[in-house]
Amino acid sequence: MREIAATWMRGGTSKCWVFRRDDLAVPDLSVDEVLLRLYGSPDARQVDGLGGGTSTTSKAVILAASQAAGVDVEYTFAQVGIEEAKVDWGSNCGNCSAVVAPFAIREGWVAPVDGETVVRVLNTNTGQLIVQKVATPGGVLSEEPTERLPGVPFLGAPVRMGFVDPAGRSTGRLLPSGRPSDVLSAAVGAVRVSLVDAGAPVVAVAAADLGVRGDESPAELDATPGLLGRLDAVRREAGVLMGLAETPEEVERAVPKLALVSTPHPADLDEPPADLTVRMLSMGRFHPAVPVTGSVALTLAGGLPGTVVHELVDDADAATGLRLGTPAGCVETFVESHDGVPVVGITRTYRRLAHGSVVLPDPPLLPSVSA
Amino acid sequence: MREIAATWMRGGTSKCWVFRRDDLAVPDLSVDEVLLRLYGSPDARQVDGLGGGTSTTSKAVILAASQAAGVDVEYTFAQVGIEEAKVDWGSNCGNCSAVVAPFAIREGWVAPVDGETVVRVLNTNTGQLIVQKVATPGGVLSEEPTERLPGVPFLGAPVRMGFVDPAGRSTGRLLPSGRPSDVLSAAVGAVRVSLVDAGAPVVAVAAADLGVRGDESPAELDATPGLLGRLDAVRREAGVLMGLAETPEEVERAVPKLALVSTPHPADLDEPPADLTVRMLSMGRFHPAVPVTGSVALTLAGGLPGTVVHELVDDADAATGLRLGTPAGCVETFVESHDGVPVVGITRTYRRLAHGSVVLPDPPLLPSVSA
Repeated sequence: MREIAATWMRGGTSKCWVFRRDDLAVPDLSVDEVLLRLYGSPDARQVDGLGGGTSTTSKAVILAASQAAGVDVEYTFAQVGIEEAKVDWGSNCGNCSAVVAPFAIREGWVAPVDGETVVRVLNTNTGQLIVQKVATPGGVLSEEPTERLPGVPFLGAPVRMGFVDPAGRSTGRLLPSGRPSDVLSAAVGAVRVSLVDAGAPVVAVAAADLGVRGDESPAELDATPGLLGRLDAVRREAGVLMGLAETPEEVERAVPKLALVSTPHPADLDEPPADLTVRMLSMGRFHPAVPVTGSVALTLAGGLPGTVVHELVDDADAATGLRLGTPAGCVETFVESHDGVPVVGITRTYRRLAHGSVVLPDPPLLPSVSA
Repeated sequence: MREIAATWMRGGTSKCWVFRRDDLAVPDLSVDEVLLRLYGSPDARQVDGLGGGTSTTSKAVILAASQAAGVDVEYTFAQVGIEEAKVDWGSNCGNCSAVVAPFAIREGWVAPVDGETVVRVLNTNTGQLIVQKVATPGGVLSEEPTERLPGVPFLGAPVRMGFVDPAGRSTGRLLPSGRPSDVLSAAVGAVRVSLVDAGAPVVAVAAADLGVRGDESPAELDATPGLLGRLDAVRREAGVLMGLAETPEEVERAVPKLALVSTPHPADLDEPPADLTVRMLSMGRFHPAVPVTGSVALTLAGGLPGTVVHELVDDADAATGLRLGTPAGCVETFVESHDGVPVVGITRTYRRLAHGSVVLPDPPLLPSVSA
């Protein structure tokens, strides 16, 4: 048995356990093995571990101070499998990203200055630099809950996050197919899609082209007969077109993500109104709000003529950011240019829930029985 | 903001945060307010707190060393509301009970002896004394995972628990109506029930009388048209007959519990075979395994001629305990007599998951928006 220092934090609409990278180095065990046992996986309920039995509560954030130029913290995200004994390292989680700056300041990795402190975070999964700003009045980190975030009923402390030059991190190109839109094969219904790689690889589809309004609840969409299956086929064919895999079968569950987009319905306008209504698929189901990385891709797509997103939004809005209408409420993104480099961003809130240590039992690390 | 010492433990098939009673005393706040904010309630996902968004993961165990004769530890159980800003103090959780002895020994409240240490636990919700035994070889608590428990895929450290003289703790009588079985009103279908108060108040019904086999999965039973509604009506009318409330509307959601009982199906016999197949309703849905307190009531009912349980089991089995066939596998209870006092028990496993402190934000304690 071994105790490992850890902090449990909410980042945006996710909950994640946060570890120092060195602390996860356990003799004779891989990090995957350590995480799976800590989280109680594989098990649908994760009853014997830290995991919460849902994709948004089975996440780990692994951090280390960085010596690299222009980087303060190296941040690795792990999606810990629930029913599968597998850790997915292939993508970042934008929501969990929000915990990095406050954790780094509390650890003493970044010295806070009076007012606002900037923390430069390198996500190692994607090579994405994320510049984070948190309030540090008097040179002390403020954890005071002052902001609302759609999907979180309590106020939280804000982290402003800018994704620096996010285009093409996974595929090398903002438009991996080289075109603003593509029509997929007849086998998946010849649906028109825009393939965009920024923050994460995303497939955008007009909701109307799939026979839904686009402002349904995640539960309604999940329950629409045939929809999840068809969207997964669309997503897999699109993944191959984006160069993420050789065959549809090899396309991962986590990426590309898929967004159903539509014009905000006059009857359910947010105040002020959203620019675009979004329902996004994440790990095989509709997301309760919106994945942050997906919102970055949609924001850049909004500024690109010929994409299915651009056709639905106002040019002037898309140039400075978008208000995305999500199942949980309106989420606002921003677009800035710093020395000619585009920065796309969003504000999330966070909260420290618990800290201390977690307990790793001795091997065997796999279940004794299937329960 | 305030940090509160806490330990996260699995007890049986539940996960609970464990607190010292004194640590939950916060100036100007009730314990209910403290727990609700810590757990992130009300919120279906409990995303801003310790709760896991399900009844088996939104539980608190509150402990104090006891000065009372014959008692080592006073144990209070709290079922923390999820979507409702309400803490239920009306019943015990048998699964969570398993964490008490190991926690008390680690705290130094009970001095372990070489071999096996006995911890006498008084549950304050019900007045129930629970005698617990844990392995303490060489006078040191063993947390070594050695036993299987249905519903938990990993091995755990065992706690043997005996409920001392459990009859009538809530109503004053083992058979609160004075009869081994009752026929309810025509309004709920004139169904025959046995009302038993031991461990917790339980309503036992033969599955066949409700038109189901009784060995279906919890999900199948939850989805059976009309079943949950009808069982809740049965449960509420039975609750009034047991004297737990004046009217069906006032009957609590947590108690009485309801058990569908049936003869084990020859085709799905466990090895060795179960004595009784059980599917139990808990907090409005079918339980993934079996509530421990409910298993105590069914065990005593098995020994009482005229109950719907007795009719289904073998007399000799019921005298010493029952093997209950649950959705997660077979759970074994025991019946003993100590100086003429009946003790009904069961073995559960536990694991420490995490420990340190949890963070209580400053007021306001209620959500800023409904999300």
